[in-house]
Amino acid sequence: MGLIKRMMATTMALASPHMRELGIKFVSVERGVAVGMVPYRRELVGDPITGVLHGGVVTTLLDSVGGAAVFSMLSVPAPIATLDLRIDYLRPSTPEAPLYARVECYKLTRNVAFARGTAYNADERDPVASMAATFMLQTQAIPHAKGGSSDG
Amino acid sequence: MGLIKRMMATTMALASPHMRELGIKFVSVERGVAVGMVPYRRELVGDPITGVLHGGVVTTLLDSVGGAAVFSMLSVPAPIATLDLRIDYLRPSTPEAPLYARVECYKLTRNVAFARGTAYNADERDPVASMAATFMLQTQAIPHAKGGSSDG
Amino acid sequence: MGLIKRMMATTMALASPHMRELGIKFVSVERGVAVGMVPYRRELVGDPITGVLHGGVVTTLLDSVGGAAVFSMLSVPAPIATLDLRIDYLRPSTPEAPLYARVECYKLTRNVAFARGTAYNADERDPVASMAATFMLQTQAIPHAKGGSSDG
Amino acid sequence: MGLIKRMMATTMALASPHMRELGIKFVSVERGVAVGMVPYRRELVGDPITGVLHGGVVTTLLDSVGGAAVFSMLSVPAPIATLDLRIDYLRPSTPEAPLYARVECYKLTRNVAFARGTAYNADERDPVASMAATFMLQTQAIPHAKGGSSDG
Repeated sequence: MGLIKRMMATTMALASPHMRELGIKFVSVERGVAVGMVPYRRELVGDPITGVLHGGVVTTLLDSVGGAAVFSMLSVPAPIATLDLRIDYLRPSTPEAPLYARVECYKLTRNVAFARGTAYNADERDPVASMAATFMLQTQAIPHAKGGSSDG
Repeated sequence: MGLIKRMMATTMALASPHMRELGIKFVSVERGVAVGMVPYRRELVGDPITGVLHGGVVTTLLDSVGGAAVFSMLSVPAPIATLDLRIDYLRPSTPEAPLYARVECYKLTRNVAFARGTAYNADERDPVASMAATFMLQTQAIPHAKGGSSDG
Repeated sequence: MGLIKRMMATTMALASPHMRELGIKFVSVERGVAVGMVPYRRELVGDPITGVLHGGVVTTLLDSVGGAAVFSMLSVPAPIATLDLRIDYLRPSTPEAPLYARVECYKLTRNVAFARGTAYNADERDPVASMAATFMLQTQAIPHAKGGSSDG
Repeated sequence: MGLIKRMMATTMALASPHMRELGIKFVSVERGVAVGMVPYRRELVGDPITGVLHGGVVTTLLDSVGGAAVFSMLSVPAPIATLDLRIDYLRPSTPEAPLYARVECYKLTRNVAFARGTAYNADERDPVASMAATFMLQTQAIPHAKGGSSDG
């Protein structure tokens, strides 16, 4: 199963145009835990003087990896959507270094999944950012999901 | 003053490689209130089936516009850094439509600025996402701010 | 309907032992907007030197008033539960003054309600705290809600 | 030092009227990590039908224990104030059971401390709520801190 989940996550990543544009890749996807990374590139920089990544890149990585962590918990593949997300920025990301994110889905209820994780450069114990997020699970038939759902 | 602030914000935007890569533009920057937008592009899409923008794009826009709203409140230009940020995703962004964000800096203290805002497509009363964020102000001399500060 | 909703909210308040212990009262409950207050008392103080209310009192008031705001939006009474909540503390509450909270439920989806509001003393434009929260709606039959639900 | 810090925290707790009213006690305070608890009482209940504690009690406990965790990190005692706080409610607190909270201050910068923790009944691995918070440190001389500061 680990392998299949991993393939699905990879597929998901390949299929998401924005993740591809940023260069986000999955490193590993186990049951409930996903690790992803984004290589450093000039186009991801927020402050050209310091060369530090834009905070939005950090959030996008954490959000994407969080989605994969939640997805890996589902017994049946189903659409998920980020409901809300909190980021604490702890320090600037190191210029020129790749950025990693490790997110754990630590609680799954009927409708909602809870995830938390960190973004870091070389050392997970020296995090760049900390995240807490909830995701909606659309496990039931939702006839008009695309047309009118506002679940996220 | 509005004009100067607006020029500064525009300059700031041009100077941020990642905002430029995403295509984020400022529409207006008044004292304490900024409006920005990002035109729809395939590279910003999170879900290729629905064509909905990636949540990370929504957050990056809100974070960037929030920074401009805070910046517009300062009597003396100073570095600011996002300290933390919460996003509630209310509905999927409309495919093919530009995404706007309006953020207000509603409280400024000695060290911290508080901002809140929404992202929307055509109608601000039908928001895509809602944001609350705090920003650190580095208004005092900080000798090693760039090299080692972990304030943001 | 406003009257009935208001009575229900009042009943709800009377029925919540902890709200009663803190002295939380509803001032008004309209469709989607609730206002509540808590009179100042020494037992609610966090810092005995300054006489400022404990932050937990501010949060409890906002959470309770938020629940009423969401409840007022339901066409059929149903259990609701706070899913998550973010508080920004903007300034210390004024000693000796009552604390008010005004919360709006600004978005209702099938499963989740979004609310935001502020706590203040005399003047709503000089807030003590700002809140963003989501609430789960249990609008469908949930056979084992009490025994095992972890929806919040 | 552990002993002194622990005594200080205990003193702090005794000195906070609202913590005393709720019955909040510290179990242990080590460098950067605090554990506290609140015994179950009818007056803390949010829903009289289920007997579940009010969410505000959970938040007040986490906020208080978080303050102690941050305080334990300071080399010189200084005023701290909660800046913002996010709570995720994972499941209802078990009726009749005491509620514990364990909070870690995992990052300390010049002006801001970051803390995260969980509330739980018998088992920390089955949490009732998860918290992420930031606290302002007032480590420099602030002439008018009490009279007019709005840092929290």
